[in-house]
Amino acid sequence: MLFLIGLGLWDSKDITLRGLEIVKNSDAVYAEFYTSKLGVGVEELEKFFGRKIEVLKREDLEDKSYRILERAKKEDIAILVAGDPVIATTHISLLIEAKKLGIPARVISNASIINAVCALTGLQNYRFGKSATVSWQKSRHFIDVIKANLSIDAHTLLFLDLNPPMKICDAVEKILELEESLGKHFAVGIARAGSDNPAVKCDRLKRLVEFDFGEPLHTIVILSRRIHFMEYKALKLFASAPEELSEWVV
Amino acid sequence: MLFLIGLGLWDSKDITLRGLEIVKNSDAVYAEFYTSKLGVGVEELEKFFGRKIEVLKREDLEDKSYRILERAKKEDIAILVAGDPVIATTHISLLIEAKKLGIPARVISNASIINAVCALTGLQNYRFGKSATVSWQKSRHFIDVIKANLSIDAHTLLFLDLNPPMKICDAVEKILELEESLGKHFAVGIARAGSDNPAVKCDRLKRLVEFDFGEPLHTIVILSRRIHFMEYKALKLFASAPEELSEWVV
Repeated sequence: MLFLIGLGLWDSKDITLRGLEIVKNSDAVYAEFYTSKLGVGVEELEKFFGRKIEVLKREDLEDKSYRILERAKKEDIAILVAGDPVIATTHISLLIEAKKLGIPARVISNASIINAVCALTGLQNYRFGKSATVSWQKSRHFIDVIKANLSIDAHTLLFLDLNPPMKICDAVEKILELEESLGKHFAVGIARAGSDNPAVKCDRLKRLVEFDFGEPLHTIVILSRRIHFMEYKALKLFASAPEELSEWVV
Repeated sequence: MLFLIGLGLWDSKDITLRGLEIVKNSDAVYAEFYTSKLGVGVEELEKFFGRKIEVLKREDLEDKSYRILERAKKEDIAILVAGDPVIATTHISLLIEAKKLGIPARVISNASIINAVCALTGLQNYRFGKSATVSWQKSRHFIDVIKANLSIDAHTLLFLDLNPPMKICDAVEKILELEESLGKHFAVGIARAGSDNPAVKCDRLKRLVEFDFGEPLHTIVILSRRIHFMEYKALKLFASAPEELSEWVV
């Protein structure tokens, strides 16, 4: 059987009891950190879980996934993924392949960055639209997503490239290169969500580069043009939002 | 200190190790099940966690929240919430009140229904737009949300009323009463996400009433008018989607 297990947000203690039980009882434990990362290394997980963990590369779960699926026909295989396992669409492909081969598979869900962002900013989950990724490669798809969300008054969660981890200042530069008008728009920068020392700051997008968010992992939310009054109160208290954000409250 | 702890999707084992550690060490443990529910009762949680749990009513966390906040000034107070604690906006108010009173507060995030829905259906998280609730009361707000999401090619996750738990057949009836044209639209019904016996079925919305989803908790996703090819493959395999869904693939 194949288990895709979410590790949650930051370190060894963010796994669920159900996930840990499977890790302890599986015949082999793998992990991948190319779609999502934790705040700690694999050595800490190995020590804490008391299991040897083999770290997989992208090709191991894509072109060469038959190797792992072959093992999962006879053994219980756990694959650990930071955050929630199916936020990355590549793992849905693996579930599809397993299903076709008649291999039972189960996903152990966990918190992903979207959960943490709402906890840290007070933004309301149901007001988020589609999410998108700001990558080091040239692509303006995320600009289209931001605009689509703005057209229906929805916030946009932007994942920042992980290879290597992109910082908020890099991402702001990329956004403004493609769409300068977004500079005046309000946004929230979030660093190290789920850790003991997160950083959260709301300001006009172009001003976020002046704030020291510290080490990755970083994320940005582009706010909808209308903010709920409760969101405004929360952003003032939790993200030091400037007074002028009040003009956006409906 | 105040801790809002997510219980995750279904039973006692869905809490994270970090959450469990806080439950064990807190001076008092509360829980609320009016914004979100588990598949098991509070007695099972009490037995498994080895703690007495006081179940709160809505007023205890709204008008009378000062009582709990007063305790949290001097003691460590854990409040357990099914799923992720801040999906319910009412808990963001509690965090705001705590912050104003200078009471340290921390949210222990966990998986919510949106994570489980992607795991069970293979739908891609980043293609979901705003979410909405179908309630027993007369309200057509969710119809506006569905339409807004359709205008930007986004899926809509519909939470169904929990008091008492609404079934997919009830929700379909409510939707069609307000917007008959959605009947021909493709949707996915999901029951008991996160449990050992979930049920998942994709079909035209009006046809979902013919499928026996079994006991609650139930959820519906209204699909975008364009489906990614991988989503189509997943819906065929995991949700017995009809062949005609292929016309929606882009």
